[in-house]
Amino acid sequence: MTADTAYPVTPRNRVKRLHERASYDRAAVHAVLDAAMLCHVAYVIDGQPYATPTLFWRRGDTLYWHGSSASRMLRHLKAGTPACLTVAHLDGLVLARSGFNHSANYRSAMCFGTARLVEDPEEKIEAMRDVVDRFYPGRSALLRPLTTQEAKATTIIEMPIEEAAAKVRAKGVGDDEDDFALPIWAGVIPVTTVLGAAETCPRLVDGVGKPQTLSIFPEGGRLDAALREGQRLYEEP
Amino acid sequence: MTADTAYPVTPRNRVKRLHERASYDRAAVHAVLDAAMLCHVAYVIDGQPYATPTLFWRRGDTLYWHGSSASRMLRHLKAGTPACLTVAHLDGLVLARSGFNHSANYRSAMCFGTARLVEDPEEKIEAMRDVVDRFYPGRSALLRPLTTQEAKATTIIEMPIEEAAAKVRAKGVGDDEDDFALPIWAGVIPVTTVLGAAETCPRLVDGVGKPQTLSIFPEGGRLDAALREGQRLYEEP
Repeated sequence: MTADTAYPVTPRNRVKRLHERASYDRAAVHAVLDAAMLCHVAYVIDGQPYATPTLFWRRGDTLYWHGSSASRMLRHLKAGTPACLTVAHLDGLVLARSGFNHSANYRSAMCFGTARLVEDPEEKIEAMRDVVDRFYPGRSALLRPLTTQEAKATTIIEMPIEEAAAKVRAKGVGDDEDDFALPIWAGVIPVTTVLGAAETCPRLVDGVGKPQTLSIFPEGGRLDAALREGQRLYEEP
Repeated sequence: MTADTAYPVTPRNRVKRLHERASYDRAAVHAVLDAAMLCHVAYVIDGQPYATPTLFWRRGDTLYWHGSSASRMLRHLKAGTPACLTVAHLDGLVLARSGFNHSANYRSAMCFGTARLVEDPEEKIEAMRDVVDRFYPGRSALLRPLTTQEAKATTIIEMPIEEAAAKVRAKGVGDDEDDFALPIWAGVIPVTTVLGAAETCPRLVDGVGKPQTLSIFPEGGRLDAALREGQRLYEEP
């Protein structure tokens, strides 16, 4: 499967509201995912749903994240458990001439599948290297190596994407035609997530510089652009 | 109940990992919620969990959001359904000297309760006014009024918070003591979500200015600060 194909559409992932904003294309879904570090994973434990915020990463059509409160449950569920991993970027506040037409610009993706523990020790070590290198290109090779104890203490969860949908709003005010003539201010306030100046650890050994590979995170740059570039380098090192 | 009391702690909301980052105080939970416009709500529909991104607002100890794919389900469940509403702010990327100690600075809150439809017509109209005024102080009074048709077409969901937990990481690199001596760059890259210059609707009636109340959204300002100020004005107009 390549990035120009689409995910299957079923009752689970079909977008019900404002379906003109939806896409099931792999490329559209991956574009939303790859611009993010933070996702929310929904699980059910004993009938109670949880939306757990966590860092995640994508490798092909599989999503990975660190263990969470679901880890203990998953240890007893070798077959895995249904989950939904969602990413949402807020891009703008849309102020219309009626309350009803107020909105937001956003990019979101919901991915459905079966979450399971990565139990194979080699796969787990590879995943722990990937979580560093996907965000910080080539960084794992520069670090103090992983210990056996650290690998044991880490839980990694994987979820092959079975179905997914992206939903995007990226436009101006959508007022009712009659309302445009009203003397009411309307417009869009853009929202972006940006990087600040790196704060070097005060205990850094003298003379150690910031690796060149971290230049994808420039002061004042957009986080989403940096993360997309990180994913590109991770896929084509 | 006042903001200086704590939510009850049960197996549902007790923080399991890194519990030193947790707080069950109302004030701590509200501080995370009030800095956000976007949340993720977890529901279960036919055994499948969904993490749905949506705009939300808080009034006292009750959370509100617009209807979603769960609306149809809720119409048949007068008693409501268990839900979890989560907010997470990413505040920084934490690069350590080992892969294991890489982390992120963040503020998150998970709220648990029973989601149900707001069906009383007056309560619904009040909620539709609140969703405007909570984000844009005093704005509902300036707008073209809500129509009966619009009120009918809108679904509002409410969830009194039964339990909640906030979790915050806001510090520098936490390396193992032995690792600080290694010649590896480490530090924090701050992340903030900021406002751009307002883009006025191109179809604005001549001479209409931006209302003074929108000055809480200054160009270059932080979104979280603007939203906290909006909540303060909403609570004490």
